Amino acid sequence: MTADNALIPTLHNIATRLRIESIRSTTAAGSGHPSTCCSAADIVATLFFAEMRFDPKRPQDPDNDRFVLSKGHAAPLLFAAWAEAGAFDRSELLKLRQLGSDLEGHPTPRLPFVDVATGSLGQGLCAAVGIALNARRIGSAHRTYVLLGDGESAEGSVWEAADVARHYELTSLCAIIDVNALGQSQATALGHDMDAYARRWIAFGWQAIVVDGHDIGALLDAFERARQTTDRPTMILAKTIKGRGVSFVEGLNGWHGRPLKKEEEAKAIAELQAQFLAEGGGPDVAAPAIPPPPHTGARVSGGRGEMAPPAYALGDSVATREAYGTALVKLGEVDPRVVVLDADVKNSTFSDRFEKVFQGRFYQNFIAEQVMVGSAMGLASRGAIAFPSTFACFLTRAYDFIRMAAISRLNVKLAGSHAGVSIGEDGPSQMALEDLAMMRAQPNMAVLYPCDAVSAERLVAAAAAWEGPAYIRTSRPKTPVIYGPGELFPVGGCKVLRQSAQDVATVVGAGVTVFEALKAYDELMKAGVAIRVIDLYSIQPIDEATLRAAAVNTGGRVVSVEDHYAGGGIGEAVAAATTGVATVRILAVRDIPRSGKPEELLDRFGISARHIVETVRQSL
Amino acid sequence: MTADNALIPTLHNIATRLRIESIRSTTAAGSGHPSTCCSAADIVATLFFAEMRFDPKRPQDPDNDRFVLSKGHAAPLLFAAWAEAGAFDRSELLKLRQLGSDLEGHPTPRLPFVDVATGSLGQGLCAAVGIALNARRIGSAHRTYVLLGDGESAEGSVWEAADVARHYELTSLCAIIDVNALGQSQATALGHDMDAYARRWIAFGWQAIVVDGHDIGALLDAFERARQTTDRPTMILAKTIKGRGVSFVEGLNGWHGRPLKKEEEAKAIAELQAQFLAEGGGPDVAAPAIPPPPHTGARVSGGRGEMAPPAYALGDSVATREAYGTALVKLGEVDPRVVVLDADVKNSTFSDRFEKVFQGRFYQNFIAEQVMVGSAMGLASRGAIAFPSTFACFLTRAYDFIRMAAISRLNVKLAGSHAGVSIGEDGPSQMALEDLAMMRAQPNMAVLYPCDAVSAERLVAAAAAWEGPAYIRTSRPKTPVIYGPGELFPVGGCKVLRQSAQDVATVVGAGVTVFEALKAYDELMKAGVAIRVIDLYSIQPIDEATLRAAAVNTGGRVVSVEDHYAGGGIGEAVAAATTGVATVRILAVRDIPRSGKPEELLDRFGISARHIVETVRQSL
Repeated sequence: MTADNALIPTLHNIATRLRIESIRSTTAAGSGHPSTCCSAADIVATLFFAEMRFDPKRPQDPDNDRFVLSKGHAAPLLFAAWAEAGAFDRSELLKLRQLGSDLEGHPTPRLPFVDVATGSLGQGLCAAVGIALNARRIGSAHRTYVLLGDGESAEGSVWEAADVARHYELTSLCAIIDVNALGQSQATALGHDMDAYARRWIAFGWQAIVVDGHDIGALLDAFERARQTTDRPTMILAKTIKGRGVSFVEGLNGWHGRPLKKEEEAKAIAELQAQFLAEGGGPDVAAPAIPPPPHTGARVSGGRGEMAPPAYALGDSVATREAYGTALVKLGEVDPRVVVLDADVKNSTFSDRFEKVFQGRFYQNFIAEQVMVGSAMGLASRGAIAFPSTFACFLTRAYDFIRMAAISRLNVKLAGSHAGVSIGEDGPSQMALEDLAMMRAQPNMAVLYPCDAVSAERLVAAAAAWEGPAYIRTSRPKTPVIYGPGELFPVGGCKVLRQSAQDVATVVGAGVTVFEALKAYDELMKAGVAIRVIDLYSIQPIDEATLRAAAVNTGGRVVSVEDHYAGGGIGEAVAAATTGVATVRILAVRDIPRSGKPEELLDRFGISARHIVETVRQSL
Repeated sequence: MTADNALIPTLHNIATRLRIESIRSTTAAGSGHPSTCCSAADIVATLFFAEMRFDPKRPQDPDNDRFVLSKGHAAPLLFAAWAEAGAFDRSELLKLRQLGSDLEGHPTPRLPFVDVATGSLGQGLCAAVGIALNARRIGSAHRTYVLLGDGESAEGSVWEAADVARHYELTSLCAIIDVNALGQSQATALGHDMDAYARRWIAFGWQAIVVDGHDIGALLDAFERARQTTDRPTMILAKTIKGRGVSFVEGLNGWHGRPLKKEEEAKAIAELQAQFLAEGGGPDVAAPAIPPPPHTGARVSGGRGEMAPPAYALGDSVATREAYGTALVKLGEVDPRVVVLDADVKNSTFSDRFEKVFQGRFYQNFIAEQVMVGSAMGLASRGAIAFPSTFACFLTRAYDFIRMAAISRLNVKLAGSHAGVSIGEDGPSQMALEDLAMMRAQPNMAVLYPCDAVSAERLVAAAAAWEGPAYIRTSRPKTPVIYGPGELFPVGGCKVLRQSAQDVATVVGAGVTVFEALKAYDELMKAGVAIRVIDLYSIQPIDEATLRAAAVNTGGRVVSVEDHYAGGGIGEAVAAATTGVATVRILAVRDIPRSGKPEELLDRFGISARHIVETVRQSL
């Protein structure tokens, strides 16, 4: 027992008020999850008003302790706690879930005290790992707290995060699971078997502390133990009752995403009012002052210097994935915010070049793409510019995280190598053929696709400078350098590589297919047929003006060619951009591919120079 | 020690031959992963020739023990083992990775003895869970074996599978991890810390057996123990050496995805030749006869009866997600192959209706979407028609599995509810706005999107009948029934809901936006402006002929409207389908949405009737 125990009645009263506010706001909204707020109220009250050190008026202070609500459906509780801390007026809480309010159904970074959007379960611990790693990067002593639901610990991403947190010995990371034993639709798999939970976390190398999650003294002690532990992260397993404090909700199934009706609300609040303790200040309890964080001088290091131009000569043969690795190093030299994350393919993506120079800004996640992207989200939320890279096909593993990174508008710069059938012999499981579709779907994502080393290097820098998420697609085969070192590649542009007044069609390629288009150009020129060739290095945003002008100037005949499936790919982007002024013939991979040599596969799946030539001829 | 120990020298020799074949085939291919084949050769030889019961000439026999190679990059070892078992001629092995051979870089079900494609790590155990569940479904006593790499156990999906296997007490499931301590780019996180591995599996409720993975006697004993264990699945943790048997490769980093050069190959094979044991038959060892499986009479139950027509009346108000649940029950009644999987949202997707009637064909995966889809893949690979359903946004969590299900051409029928901003107050984390893009990208995926209860029921049946993967997108709000019970909805079709010779534009909607289009029709008709309205219930395949005809008949003016992001969505599909004959104006969600009422959000994000009316007017 610590001296803080004098605070217990006060904290109990605050927790009671948080329950009341959560019930009020969800009933007012007509939707939401009050029962899960009630189970976690004691945990959150204790954390906010007796454990964490932060300035509620300056939620972005780099030395503030951080809190991530992984169980995002308890948003009303989070909002009530921040209101209680003085971040905004409590009356705002009743605007929960309204279009005009930033107090949304689940937390988003529209609110200054939310780092990453949550609500897709299993992501918060991954983000918290990144936030804790970031504290090291910026030299801050802040701690990182994250509250999970019990049901969400079935998500594999939670165990990926557990492993990485152990590997990096993130002692400043303290997670709490609100073990209320009820999921959305039924009891959780483990129910209240606290030993089973503890065994798992201990086996994954964490300190596990089991407590009664409604015993504030026990919670205070657990937080204290976590703070004193210097060799591993801590998981506090808090046994709780869903709906705690409201007799007709407590421990019952069927109350997950269900607000109380007006009459139920009145009954519940009457019950809760009766639970205020006089010795803690009663219903008018004032929240204890929150201690400000110690200022270590830590600041998010900022600023970007000028990168030297690419050092490639025309005709050099370099894979864009290799140019990516070289560019990361140059970028890292001029911008201390740049960090790189890997999932055990650094020797294929060439991100190992960055590791060799900037070991402290390189994070190995082993074969675990979800925590790689989730941790990048956490790092980016605290000022880093994070480049998670792997084979492009394996970014599909983290699509839910990518989606949430877009919602959070974070500086996560994804890089996917080995795109398309041009990887050859490894076969379809290793070929990304849907990555452009999945990245383009996110409306604020820059989607960049270099064809040579110069454009690769320029686009890495462009991705870093882009506000928000970006994607860089690189290729496995070596390709010739076709751009001079001074060539610039603004996001949203394209390059017209061949043009004349006699062009009868426009061929739009990107990445490896640029070279097929150039071969087709040469072939057609032999027969006196001139075509316009465009390198669409920026798939999103797309250079609609240049594409439309080219279409108009070439008789409305447009051929697109991509090492990607047709659905959601380059051809459809071009068709949408040139609608009304072009007939777009889309050359794309239209069947499940197979192993073979790269050049064989380009031809077999309809995206080689031969197919371009044929399609142009048919269009005439 | 068991009687089988007399077999040990024979098995050793077979393992040696498998190593030789793996090295030969990868050197001939000029790419591949021989070192990882060498670490697992003793395990595979023991499994195939002393443990498993199967008919190598009838690899699809429902009573065969099943083997999943989760570490798919060891494909040459798998192929060598099947050749050794007599499934095909050994000379085929030297065609590895060639375009004309089905022996691809990673296993795919093009081969009759491969159930699910592997090569994206962390998926095999999920599939094996489904295969083991399927054995129960069809009443077969077969066992299911799955070989994982150690690096891949960092994938969270492995722990999702671990949890579900424990929950369902899958005693017929025996997994093996080839703990060779080396990943692709560096040592694994846990190296050879066998205790750490064992702790984790025990904590997740499995039997864990640590063995020397090159000690065939120990492997035989471990398999025997696994077979005798009747209360939990077994994980055999086999400590191995990567490159085992080849002195200059053994235990060294840098040999992951690297075939031996010709001169290295000769040296390696000479070393391996010297390892044959005379008492096991020397280099000419004959593989022991593989015992056939006991025939329990189990057969994949087949056939589909006729479903009664939908029992809805015009004007009924029913959410398509609810109609999905009702349809599942009707489908389950006429087709015993139908199974349903959930990730703790069955009361929102209405799949709980199926559970209530067919408890033995309903699988709860708790909040773990990857194993839900992965297990569905396993079930489907063995004859089930599997419907995994959750909120559409959370299918992004399983996109890598969906990609691999498409590669495997499996009967996985994904269903995603709560699509789009029309869910309202829960906010962006719960709104699927990229699901159509990610599903459309898979070229063999049927993408279906009902707008009312009748079409929902019909499309559930159509999805079941479709050969291969399918996706059904359902909505949260109730919508009126607009189709009669006799209306049919073939995959690849659409419905023209309003048309006249005076139509000045075509409006294409789907799902909730069909009703916005119908409102726009009424509004425009008041002003004497006629439009054609199309319900594009089949997004893929798409009814190009009807769309093009409508475009031509309405002056080339097409407006598409979708509750989805623009990239890869319905508008782009329509633009591609009508290229050259239409100017398509795409109404889609173009920014990150937020919480609000459904109708407010449809309007705020540009996809309400008002926007359709304005866009039609502007197009004139």
